[in-house]
Amino acid sequence: MPSHTLDVVGIGNAIVDIIASADDGFLDRHGMTKGGMMLVDERRAEAIYAQMGPAMISSGGSAGNTIAGIASLGGRTGYIGKVRDDELGRAFTHDITAAGTIFRTPPASTGPATAHCLILVTPDSQRTMNTYLGACVSIGSADIDDELVRSAQYTYLEGYLYDDPAAKHAFHVAAEIAHAAGRRVALSLSDAFCVERHRGDFLELVERHVDVLFGNQGEIEALFECGWDDAIARLRPSIALAAITRGPAGSVILTKDSVTEIAAEPVERVVDTTGAGDLYAAGFLFGLTRDVALPECGRLGGIAAAEVIGHFGARPQTPLRTLITSLV
Amino acid sequence: MPSHTLDVVGIGNAIVDIIASADDGFLDRHGMTKGGMMLVDERRAEAIYAQMGPAMISSGGSAGNTIAGIASLGGRTGYIGKVRDDELGRAFTHDITAAGTIFRTPPASTGPATAHCLILVTPDSQRTMNTYLGACVSIGSADIDDELVRSAQYTYLEGYLYDDPAAKHAFHVAAEIAHAAGRRVALSLSDAFCVERHRGDFLELVERHVDVLFGNQGEIEALFECGWDDAIARLRPSIALAAITRGPAGSVILTKDSVTEIAAEPVERVVDTTGAGDLYAAGFLFGLTRDVALPECGRLGGIAAAEVIGHFGARPQTPLRTLITSLV
Repeated sequence: MPSHTLDVVGIGNAIVDIIASADDGFLDRHGMTKGGMMLVDERRAEAIYAQMGPAMISSGGSAGNTIAGIASLGGRTGYIGKVRDDELGRAFTHDITAAGTIFRTPPASTGPATAHCLILVTPDSQRTMNTYLGACVSIGSADIDDELVRSAQYTYLEGYLYDDPAAKHAFHVAAEIAHAAGRRVALSLSDAFCVERHRGDFLELVERHVDVLFGNQGEIEALFECGWDDAIARLRPSIALAAITRGPAGSVILTKDSVTEIAAEPVERVVDTTGAGDLYAAGFLFGLTRDVALPECGRLGGIAAAEVIGHFGARPQTPLRTLITSLV
Repeated sequence: MPSHTLDVVGIGNAIVDIIASADDGFLDRHGMTKGGMMLVDERRAEAIYAQMGPAMISSGGSAGNTIAGIASLGGRTGYIGKVRDDELGRAFTHDITAAGTIFRTPPASTGPATAHCLILVTPDSQRTMNTYLGACVSIGSADIDDELVRSAQYTYLEGYLYDDPAAKHAFHVAAEIAHAAGRRVALSLSDAFCVERHRGDFLELVERHVDVLFGNQGEIEALFECGWDDAIARLRPSIALAAITRGPAGSVILTKDSVTEIAAEPVERVVDTTGAGDLYAAGFLFGLTRDVALPECGRLGGIAAAEVIGHFGARPQTPLRTLITSLV
């Protein structure tokens, strides 16, 4: 494999999160399914925002969170995603570049606003997401920065890209560039509903195009339409490496030859689970790029996830490299 | 006293906070004094933002935080302050009205952007603030909503208003309306540097125009230019009621006849001290409006402050009324 200058480049929907506390009744009144991600149009986004409580704003997006996490761990990262040249777009750009990530996708100067996700956090610390994709749908294969993709050891793609045809095409272009350059491709399944929307495509991706798979138990079960034991039995022959999170039960690392269970890191108080999977992937991928053993990769994932669920928002608030000094 | 429909109306600089972690070296390199609030122009604000780390955005402003806290405790509140009709202004308006507060100051449609405060949180959890006042300086006495002020048992004013001549004038107009309607006026001293900038004015305010004073130890010492014991000896004859916070040492409630020390509430982990004083004032004022005894007012202040220092951002993330069920 030729030498690389970046550890991971992430490609995803560039989204700013708007996060508020809500009770279960709020979800019921608005027909939201707890724990899921629903796509909403601008009008519904405005209606939800008008009725939700006082909010905080923090950059998000699944791959954006993962890349910010890897940068916070000390990794060399790039990001490809589409914002509009508006206030939220400038905030997104500030945050990802301030973490040290190379981000040079040109913002859209016309069309819909920067994407935002209205996140309701219930008293059980679960997050329920309503995403207005906005400018994300204007990403195209021309935005896939060949040089950036070729320079990275891993290209990390989020399944959510499949929710838009142009973004899905860009996804495939990026995966081809990466593999042609002798790099590895990692995929996050993103969300069980997303898996249901694109099951056939995702099964083909996993079998043919992806080297490392990330997901949670519900997503793997949705992918294979069966229970946990059967799902991992079907997954193992299909993929070189998969890391599956199971909430408080920790995670499971699968290869063709092994199944390794990793305990969750202790957390003082779970405040908001948004970004838990994204940050697990950050720690795990960072470990892979540092050639640490797989169980240590899982522990790094757990440490990064534990930081982000201890507060509102899906981006690290404590520099993650200060939390892993004994590991890498 | 005629009957009132609101508990507290707050008047202050309507500011959106942009909060990031930083190390002490960042403060040194930018010539910032830890723990203080510095006024900055637009150019310096942009330069600081460009260099600070990934940030989160949350509504702020001293009186805004206090009013949001009282609303979160279940109080009936109003707010007067000036934003621009831009994205940050809409976020500020959303957040304060979503908490149940009446906010009808018309936004500026021309002129500087909505005020923002760049807050650096160091590893010791201290916050250092850089405020660009923006649209705040366009507040005028015409923005003082007579009906709102007259309808509230307390009018709460922040000392920071004195940093702009037009806002200072609006401050006095509001205090006169409140007293003419038989209401009480509360003042927060805001910041030791603010006290130094306006010491003569603040001394006159305390002696003649204010019924309840809020401040911290450093602010009271700055007001009287002496140490703690001398400062409280000089303060007590001047004012009916004062509540002075002392960080981890709790607070002290002063009347002409009494000095009562209140222990701080236990906090699992102090994350960011931004808003501690503002939320203490929220709890204390809420207690006053519910006619609870002064030591209980101090405890309510301590509970509200403890919530807000447990996370990034100066607005409550947990509905405060759920934390005080045994008290009022």
